[in-house]
Amino acid sequence: EFEAIIDELQPYDIAQIYADLPEKHRTRFLFFLNIDALADLIQELDSEEQIDVLNRLGIEKSGKVLDMMDNDDLASLLEDLSPEKIASLLSGMKKGEAKIVQDIMNYPAETAGRLMTNRFVWIRDYYTVREAVDKLKSFAELAETINYLYVVDQHRRLVGVVSYRDLLIADTQEKIRDIMYERVISVLEDTDQEEVARLIERYDFLAIPVVNAEHVLIGIITVDDIIDVVIREANEDIEKLSASGKSIDFDTKSFVAAYRRLPWLVLLLFIGLISGSIIDTYSTTLKQVVALAFFMPMISGMTGNTGTQSLAVVVRGLASNDIDKRVITKLIFRELFVGVIIGVTCGVLISVIALVWQGNFILGLVVGSSLLLTLIIGTLAGTVIPLILYRLNIDPAIASGPLITTLNDIFSLVTYFGIATMFIEYLL
Amino acid sequence: EFEAIIDELQPYDIAQIYADLPEKHRTRFLFFLNIDALADLIQELDSEEQIDVLNRLGIEKSGKVLDMMDNDDLASLLEDLSPEKIASLLSGMKKGEAKIVQDIMNYPAETAGRLMTNRFVWIRDYYTVREAVDKLKSFAELAETINYLYVVDQHRRLVGVVSYRDLLIADTQEKIRDIMYERVISVLEDTDQEEVARLIERYDFLAIPVVNAEHVLIGIITVDDIIDVVIREANEDIEKLSASGKSIDFDTKSFVAAYRRLPWLVLLLFIGLISGSIIDTYSTTLKQVVALAFFMPMISGMTGNTGTQSLAVVVRGLASNDIDKRVITKLIFRELFVGVIIGVTCGVLISVIALVWQGNFILGLVVGSSLLLTLIIGTLAGTVIPLILYRLNIDPAIASGPLITTLNDIFSLVTYFGIATMFIEYLL
Ligand SMILES: [Mg+2]
Ligand SMILES: [Mg+2]
Ligand SMILES: [Mg+2]
Ligand SMILES: [Mg+2]
Ligand SMILES: [Mg+2]
Ligand SMILES: [Mg+2]
Ligand SMILES: [Mg+2]
Ligand SMILES: [Mg+2]
Ligand SMILES: [Mg+2]
Ligand SMILES: [Mg+2]
Ligand SMILES: [Mg+2]
Ligand SMILES: [Mg+2]
Ligand SMILES: [Mg+2]
Repeated sequence: EFEAIIDELQPYDIAQIYADLPEKHRTRFLFFLNIDALADLIQELDSEEQIDVLNRLGIEKSGKVLDMMDNDDLASLLEDLSPEKIASLLSGMKKGEAKIVQDIMNYPAETAGRLMTNRFVWIRDYYTVREAVDKLKSFAELAETINYLYVVDQHRRLVGVVSYRDLLIADTQEKIRDIMYERVISVLEDTDQEEVARLIERYDFLAIPVVNAEHVLIGIITVDDIIDVVIREANEDIEKLSASGKSIDFDTKSFVAAYRRLPWLVLLLFIGLISGSIIDTYSTTLKQVVALAFFMPMISGMTGNTGTQSLAVVVRGLASNDIDKRVITKLIFRELFVGVIIGVTCGVLISVIALVWQGNFILGLVVGSSLLLTLIIGTLAGTVIPLILYRLNIDPAIASGPLITTLNDIFSLVTYFGIATMFIEYLL
Repeated sequence: EFEAIIDELQPYDIAQIYADLPEKHRTRFLFFLNIDALADLIQELDSEEQIDVLNRLGIEKSGKVLDMMDNDDLASLLEDLSPEKIASLLSGMKKGEAKIVQDIMNYPAETAGRLMTNRFVWIRDYYTVREAVDKLKSFAELAETINYLYVVDQHRRLVGVVSYRDLLIADTQEKIRDIMYERVISVLEDTDQEEVARLIERYDFLAIPVVNAEHVLIGIITVDDIIDVVIREANEDIEKLSASGKSIDFDTKSFVAAYRRLPWLVLLLFIGLISGSIIDTYSTTLKQVVALAFFMPMISGMTGNTGTQSLAVVVRGLASNDIDKRVITKLIFRELFVGVIIGVTCGVLISVIALVWQGNFILGLVVGSSLLLTLIIGTLAGTVIPLILYRLNIDPAIASGPLITTLNDIFSLVTYFGIATMFIEYLL
């Protein structure tokens, strides 16, 4: 009866029940579950809990569970573990299954090879619909439920696809070759996961096949894993923009969160001291015209703000656009114009404010022209820096929002005090 | 032959071909396409191009195309148009189809009702598998290809679900009630789209049914539209964090982009002047100890940085977590501790630097304790402000990154100069 209930539940719900159990009942609960339910449960847990469950199960039973898991999920379970721990877990598994997982783990992170599962059913084009369905039935327990059967030739090269819906609608005696769709869109094993996500988003597929250089079908990637990719990539971009460090969520412990955030902050602390030394350099100017200090936070703040705005546009654009030289050139010119428009508007506005407030026309001009210049520089910095890093294949995580903000601080102080010093005689 | 080629292409590819055509050939190309292909094409275009295509087609043909479109896509096509334009487009459509679209548009933005399509096939639990498949066949042209048939009772209330895979594997004489899954997870018509996305992400569904308060099945939401929701919501969060204004992408024109970014910048300009007036207030202190200016950009920058980090964690967390009082309390205490850890670390570090650099022990203490305090305040501000807005159901877009940065600027200057003024006699 217990098993019947568990069987009716979704994996997520089983995991919720497990997570809510008091510590002492957990092992007993695990031994009530069959291998299938255990595999479902483990796929829903985060990595610490996964290891905990595997330890409770012991090497033999955990081997069976690992055999049953989707190999993409298994690869991501193993990826953070030590080589010894990986070896020990794989040793409990069937040779063939262990080999498959190791193959997947050999692909670089964030590639199609890493995301794919080999739990799919292939068919040949000379099958009838009935034969295809019979093959699906015989693999029903193991295969992912992904809505498509892929068609391969004698060398296992991908030649077509039929959906379950096509199979349902077709006559059972029809040949697969007569109903299959031949212009199959596929990805290579080393395709970046963001490119895979873009294709699935564009074509509204429920899965996409992965082929190697010989066009041999080696796996499929399913849309549920692509949703996870989209969420992870968005979080990554937000981490970049906020320099908030890798993967801090609501469950992260204080010490871990602080530890992940501190490196950036310490770096930014030193960069902030550079701004300080610029003010120091211009302390004569500052002492002569104390009113300059009044506009200082506004100018450096605004330069940071416009830089962050541009950065956000670029970082999101890189995630969802096909990037080529033309796109980049167009973007840089667009942002240059945006910088000029914003600069002129804010520059004129602040000139008028400075004039009215401080009653000094030249001060108004100095502040206004500084803001014009720093806004253009800030906008361009926010655009060009992440693009250069992207082009150099350097992790644009370096182009984080606070870093650009801090760099723009420096630019803006140099510009502002530079201009003010040039006009110092008119300001006195 | 042309039609055969078009028929083989994916909607996205047809749209690409159309977009690449020179202006003068477009109308001719459109008249080569059948209603089906036109509906596919229009769903892929952005809203300006959609209207352009409909205008080229004329009222009668465009009516037929609109009838054929998925009604969720049609609703989002219409949502930005003027009431007159909407009325004129709907007038070309069949009465029933127009009514359905109007109903969808009556749901608030970002709810399940707005995302759902009524192009699904329902079956009854006394059907045999063969009868279910026959019904699917007869609606095959119109219905979304979503992998599930939903089962309803005589009042159209949702009672079960079968997947195409279940239908393929089952015997044709089996009753639907014997193979259907009864614990169907559904959403209400007014469920927030982010909640819908969370459910689909969690359970790895390819679609989710939408029911009304009487549990009557009124629509389905498909995973492809949920991917779009996830992307849109992530972009929204990034817009919040960067105050970059609504939907600026690589194709936005300079003037439009500048126009969307300017309101925030102008607001931030005035807030920046507040920081200036604080410096002005403390100008006596500043003139007495010019070395204070040296650490000013660092302190206000760091307070902004830690605030942005917290903000990013909170904004992303709100998107992907179930939020209740317990979660919020836990989060605030977590971030408070993070603030203390970060504050102590950076505070001690800067005290030592200030001591070594300026050779003044008291200055080191003043700078260090100011940084400690402002980092704690900054971290809490970045956590609490977006949470309060969320609780008050105010669009947390107000809690944008630059706004928090600018507010933290003000906090930090007041704290720094306040402490320095208290100890001024020891600093001289
Ligand atoms: Mg990538
Ligand atoms: Mg799509
Ligand atoms: Mg998977
Ligand atoms: Mg999964
Ligand atoms: Mg990315
Ligand atoms: Mg990435
Ligand atoms: Mg469609
Ligand atoms: Mg929402
Ligand atoms: Mg999922
Ligand atoms: Mg749709
Ligand atoms: Mg769509
Ligand atoms: Mg949101
Ligand atoms: Mg939203």
